[in-house]
Amino acid sequence: MARLPVVISLDPPKDKGWDWALGIAEEMKDLVVAFKVGWPLLLEGKEKLGTLREMAPVVLDLKLADISFTMINIIRRLEFDAVIAHAFVGREKALRELREELNKQDKELYLVVAMSHKGADELLNRMWRENVLIAYELADGIVAPATRPELLVKIRKVWPRKVLSPGVGVQGARPCSAVKLGADAEIIGRTVTRNPSPREYLLRLYSGCKA
Amino acid sequence: MARLPVVISLDPPKDKGWDWALGIAEEMKDLVVAFKVGWPLLLEGKEKLGTLREMAPVVLDLKLADISFTMINIIRRLEFDAVIAHAFVGREKALRELREELNKQDKELYLVVAMSHKGADELLNRMWRENVLIAYELADGIVAPATRPELLVKIRKVWPRKVLSPGVGVQGARPCSAVKLGADAEIIGRTVTRNPSPREYLLRLYSGCKA
Repeated sequence: MARLPVVISLDPPKDKGWDWALGIAEEMKDLVVAFKVGWPLLLEGKEKLGTLREMAPVVLDLKLADISFTMINIIRRLEFDAVIAHAFVGREKALRELREELNKQDKELYLVVAMSHKGADELLNRMWRENVLIAYELADGIVAPATRPELLVKIRKVWPRKVLSPGVGVQGARPCSAVKLGADAEIIGRTVTRNPSPREYLLRLYSGCKA
Repeated sequence: MARLPVVISLDPPKDKGWDWALGIAEEMKDLVVAFKVGWPLLLEGKEKLGTLREMAPVVLDLKLADISFTMINIIRRLEFDAVIAHAFVGREKALRELREELNKQDKELYLVVAMSHKGADELLNRMWRENVLIAYELADGIVAPATRPELLVKIRKVWPRKVLSPGVGVQGARPCSAVKLGADAEIIGRTVTRNPSPREYLLRLYSGCKA
């Protein structure tokens, strides 16, 4: 069976950690293209990243937005396949050096060019063109929101590589809506991971959805 | 003795962690206004934050730049006195809800309005006015770079609350230069923490420097 165009976000509830995450992952590993791990789970330890990578590729959603020295200091402590950073921090002494480090490690870089929440429209999403230009030079893929379908279409027209799209489910976009507009995969978290039957629910939400 | 207008950044070298950080902190705790802890140290565990807070206030430099759900999910797992986030992610469903959570916990929020590295001039530092306006509504203090003295002066003229200034030392700005331009404290890391006699070196760098 082909995998669903879905990246499962493994952000645990406040009182949960890696046991919760690995349980969900075990249930989904044959269905999805990757697992997304963020800071909440990493704060419960980084030792299980290798175990998770054996199930599916791991995208670290660190939303890195710092100087190169610090970003590199962070990623050298972690196991992963791809990492998400913010395009807006710019190239020199930031993303360019991060890219060089990722090249050495043979890992992927995704850059956030726009976000899914309402406040993103104040500043960040107004800069999407500049962010895409930075991504052109440095990124394997971008992150662009399912909650802004018109923006997603504009971005897809000018961006030839991978697009991951968050904002599906709790945040308001419908499952498969971003994939239909050209995203390679949708990032989905709470909607599925808090469901009592996550595997069945995911299969139902994405039945007939193709990237 | 009055404390120096300095926040010490406890980002450890790749092969070091909390033993290194607590050793530096023990040596400096009577001299500085706070310690800054970032993701590299947190990836070595979060259990020692309480121990560090007994020495001096702890500013978590997480450069948060995510939706409110995730930012709150992160900070609820940590002990701290103040946290640094990025202004550019905007208010609704992001910084506004983060502020509300910090109010409940009686903790401070610092927002990055401009950064110290060269790439910051591409996008982020062009938005400093908009970032300051967001900070007006939501922040106890801001983070603005010592490496851009002209910008720092402009920001200080329109920003009445606290200013923390990174970029001193390795990144190029001279110790005390930002304090002289109105910053409340300078953030300094590697220059001091990698020195063989960090306490003596810090005292020498900041002799005669007053906020």
